[in-house]
Amino acid sequence: MEEIKVVRRVLDVNETMATNNRKRFSDSKVFVLNLMSSPGAGKTTLLEKTLARIMPETRSAVIVGDICTTNDADRLAKTGAQVVQVNTDEFGGDCHLAAHVVEKASEGFDLNDLDLLIVENVGNLVCPAEFDIGEDARAVVLSVTEGEDKPVKYPLMFRVCQAALLNKIDLLNYLEYDIEEAAENIRQINPEMAIYRTSTQTGEGLDPWIEWLQAHIARKKG
Amino acid sequence: MEEIKVVRRVLDVNETMATNNRKRFSDSKVFVLNLMSSPGAGKTTLLEKTLARIMPETRSAVIVGDICTTNDADRLAKTGAQVVQVNTDEFGGDCHLAAHVVEKASEGFDLNDLDLLIVENVGNLVCPAEFDIGEDARAVVLSVTEGEDKPVKYPLMFRVCQAALLNKIDLLNYLEYDIEEAAENIRQINPEMAIYRTSTQTGEGLDPWIEWLQAHIARKKG
Repeated sequence: MEEIKVVRRVLDVNETMATNNRKRFSDSKVFVLNLMSSPGAGKTTLLEKTLARIMPETRSAVIVGDICTTNDADRLAKTGAQVVQVNTDEFGGDCHLAAHVVEKASEGFDLNDLDLLIVENVGNLVCPAEFDIGEDARAVVLSVTEGEDKPVKYPLMFRVCQAALLNKIDLLNYLEYDIEEAAENIRQINPEMAIYRTSTQTGEGLDPWIEWLQAHIARKKG
Repeated sequence: MEEIKVVRRVLDVNETMATNNRKRFSDSKVFVLNLMSSPGAGKTTLLEKTLARIMPETRSAVIVGDICTTNDADRLAKTGAQVVQVNTDEFGGDCHLAAHVVEKASEGFDLNDLDLLIVENVGNLVCPAEFDIGEDARAVVLSVTEGEDKPVKYPLMFRVCQAALLNKIDLLNYLEYDIEEAAENIRQINPEMAIYRTSTQTGEGLDPWIEWLQAHIARKKG
């Protein structure tokens, strides 16, 4: 019980800082997306392909969260986007990005010069879903190699997101995987979810995902 | 800082309970393996195939950790192994199995009648690595679809394990993936790691993995 009380206090502090972040992001009319997934579901490649299509018209920046290494930031910097890498091993090896970390990381950007700020969270289908970082929307990437049942096994993640990408569909021919069942499992947890079927290798399915993103950016601009 | 102090206290309590578990497991000479991975790396299928080969000669039980659902326990029960499902949503939605949870779950078994107890941890490449549950050994399953760089991005997991399975090698022909680089990244973090290349679809590579397991079971029996 002690443990639960303590976690509650940490989350309360996080909520206050997330509210501060949200106000700063709103003042600058920058759309902030929290992108989450298991390790290796394809977040970084998705961002490389997405940014290549929307920049420089959409002025974009990325905060990349990893426990260790700057691999992902190095890859994303090549897109021309402004990139800040957060290594959570400097914050006790955290398994998620918290609001205070996003606050500090976003100080490196002039938010008024941005239309889009994407936070690529630590690869983890559990903990990041518990931490509000002041974002406008959340999206989850689920590789089809992970099996159909992950939405019902990790329901919080699918409850808090507005968009889900069933990614790596180029591998469907080589897997025993029922993508309709996966989509149905997502809708069972979250009937309102926008579901996209994507391959960053072939480019299939990226257009509707980018339309979703652009619509949200435009709405934030007002 | 407050947050870090609190985490330390939780880990101290866990360490005490893990020591208690370890003594119980030693008294019964049951070999206990903590099996970890990202979501969807193939832990449950690996266990299905492994148990089918070693039972009933090796008397086996499994504790299955998931946030929600009894899907995995239902699958594993068909192998004939004794299975206890832990749903961590009853423990605050925990992202890992802690020692006290394993203690409670293992009360359902007569440990003296077992040679092998496998704990299939919650699918998460981060947090489970931080929690000693009183196991004799730890193994990590890494799907080749997750990319080569995961060992250096999630180093703690690879530091605390004694065996790593590079799984789903039946998909190698369809991926841009350098398995030598992945193995090298593992050795960079943990030069002592036993590394296996496995496919639960074709059965390739399962023999050496099962030899590793049997050797550890035999050593525990003394």
